[in-house]
Amino acid sequence: MREVCVIGVGVIKFGKFPEKSLEALGVPAILEACEDSGVPMDRIQVAYCGSVWGGNCVGQRILKEVGLTGIEVVNVSNACASGSTAFRGVWGLIASGVYDIGLAFGIEQMSKQIAGAIPLDQDDLEAGQGLIMPALYAMRAKRHMELYGTTREHLALVSVKNHAHSVHNPKAQYQKSFTVDEVLNSAMICDPLTLYQCCPTGDGASAAILCAKELANKYSAKPVTVVASVLTSGKSSLEPHDVTISDLTRRTAKQSYEMAGIGPEDLDVLEVHDAFTIGEILHYENLGLCKPGEGARMIEEKRTWISGDIPVNPSGGLLSKGHPLGATGIAQVAEIVWQLRGQAGSRQVEGARVGLTHCTGGGIGGIDGAACSIHILKR
Amino acid sequence: MREVCVIGVGVIKFGKFPEKSLEALGVPAILEACEDSGVPMDRIQVAYCGSVWGGNCVGQRILKEVGLTGIEVVNVSNACASGSTAFRGVWGLIASGVYDIGLAFGIEQMSKQIAGAIPLDQDDLEAGQGLIMPALYAMRAKRHMELYGTTREHLALVSVKNHAHSVHNPKAQYQKSFTVDEVLNSAMICDPLTLYQCCPTGDGASAAILCAKELANKYSAKPVTVVASVLTSGKSSLEPHDVTISDLTRRTAKQSYEMAGIGPEDLDVLEVHDAFTIGEILHYENLGLCKPGEGARMIEEKRTWISGDIPVNPSGGLLSKGHPLGATGIAQVAEIVWQLRGQAGSRQVEGARVGLTHCTGGGIGGIDGAACSIHILKR
Repeated sequence: MREVCVIGVGVIKFGKFPEKSLEALGVPAILEACEDSGVPMDRIQVAYCGSVWGGNCVGQRILKEVGLTGIEVVNVSNACASGSTAFRGVWGLIASGVYDIGLAFGIEQMSKQIAGAIPLDQDDLEAGQGLIMPALYAMRAKRHMELYGTTREHLALVSVKNHAHSVHNPKAQYQKSFTVDEVLNSAMICDPLTLYQCCPTGDGASAAILCAKELANKYSAKPVTVVASVLTSGKSSLEPHDVTISDLTRRTAKQSYEMAGIGPEDLDVLEVHDAFTIGEILHYENLGLCKPGEGARMIEEKRTWISGDIPVNPSGGLLSKGHPLGATGIAQVAEIVWQLRGQAGSRQVEGARVGLTHCTGGGIGGIDGAACSIHILKR
Repeated sequence: MREVCVIGVGVIKFGKFPEKSLEALGVPAILEACEDSGVPMDRIQVAYCGSVWGGNCVGQRILKEVGLTGIEVVNVSNACASGSTAFRGVWGLIASGVYDIGLAFGIEQMSKQIAGAIPLDQDDLEAGQGLIMPALYAMRAKRHMELYGTTREHLALVSVKNHAHSVHNPKAQYQKSFTVDEVLNSAMICDPLTLYQCCPTGDGASAAILCAKELANKYSAKPVTVVASVLTSGKSSLEPHDVTISDLTRRTAKQSYEMAGIGPEDLDVLEVHDAFTIGEILHYENLGLCKPGEGARMIEEKRTWISGDIPVNPSGGLLSKGHPLGATGIAQVAEIVWQLRGQAGSRQVEGARVGLTHCTGGGIGGIDGAACSIHILKR
């Protein structure tokens, strides 16, 4: 297996654009990534498109608008981890030597869809009884509060941090900071989670150009190496278990660190799946940034702010940058690439050399998540 | 890159089962493939699921029912080539050495969906004006008749052959033979294509276990080697062009033959995308079994019957075995595997050593097909 680099990334400003076509959303992200990479369009040999609701052959429909036709195109879907799954797919085909250069992109237009929280599958017993995402995360929050003394203010601080970060991200869906009181006083969605503690629905597109490392210098002055790419699914969770622990994220992290030959202490910056505030706190623990129960202290001590010792979600995260499902995973990769290149402007994490992206997807009754994907990047 | 084998396959009887869950359709196919392979379930490291309408995380939902959790799972979609795309995905991750053993499966339950011919995307200008699949193929048929003197009877003979073949396939959706007159006198769908010249909608599931060749003998007495795996997409077709020629299938075939180091003359048996009768005749030509314009003579001379010199669609093909989109590509692989192992019963092609599967998917305005995938298998 060969080493693979990211040599170009592109992301559109996330937001709500119901008047636009999917093609109009996707094309600018792809063109930006191509231009960033310096790779002529006709050198791209494979493309994976991640999307949940893009519809039949969404990838091909967008690619024909940029004139990228006649290559292998695969449309992938893994709920909130769809974009990350697309990235992983292209990584695999380049690592294996099947191709040298590929495009991973993700797209979602949720402003035209039903709300993401409505269960899609009427056969899903758990969702049918109300165990949708906000409820699931709220129970985790309650349990974490009970077990470890985590407070409503701790939860709110995650939102305060990520919204503050996104003020510096011109591509974030929201660019406005909030106080703890404002977060706590926003509408109650599912106790203890208030509106500003839940990621918004929105539209977005993102793209990355991947390339065999041996060719990367030909195109990019600042290639970023993918030192770990892991995608896995949850195991059966029918046994009684601690809902504050994600076995899925823990296993994925363990595999990723082993593949990269590093530990969490070597990370300089992370983009983490903060679909709800409690998610980020739990994932501090699941990713090994701290011990179980210590997540709230991480945010209380401001360690995960851009100015802290282990910055998390400098982009604003899903909470403020937005979470257009298929676009999220590759937007995380783009943020880490910009950070490692030193191109993140006023949200730059100084001296960042190693970064991690983390995405989870899908609440399927009986297993603890349908997908989890982690990528570790190094400059 | 390593060589990859198929060591187990499973297919449920295709048909219409609106009362069943997707899980109830998919599970027996997966269990059959596992049992056929001799691989214990817990040795499977990756699974790709191909489906168009299976919904959110369809792969994970089915896999949890067989207890196969905690592994990489990817849901892929490429219209009628979704199953074939799943097979290709698993092939890539084993060829590359990422994994040793994987599962590719496909599923579709069209009996619960709107008819496949209804355009899904209201922004699709061509489909919106009636250029849906039967119309597209009918125009190709008319043009072939005009250019080469192909007759309505020639078209009907393809249906007669494939329905006759499927009488010997207990897993086919239909197992009834028809005369030329019966085919021609069935309801007119889109002149010259009558009802029995169009593949049915239906439900189905199929599965294959793939394995690195170096391990295959450990599990299977009769591993079948994947000597070519190619997936690509159509190029721009806005220029005037001959609609009887599929540049997409031609390019895919050329790449496949080069990868396998063989030519069409080396094939013993094929499963070809006969969504409509004219499709099979065109693909005789596009796949290089004969020259352009000679397709009708192939069927007239009975060369592609099981008893002929180059049998095509011994399973009954999409026309009679059925075409549950996501399940089709891997069901084709299963048929070729059975043929190469000598396990095809009364539809056995004697002495078959090399077989080919061919799937196309997606009519996207402006390009000549969203996907085409060819796999060449060898015993």
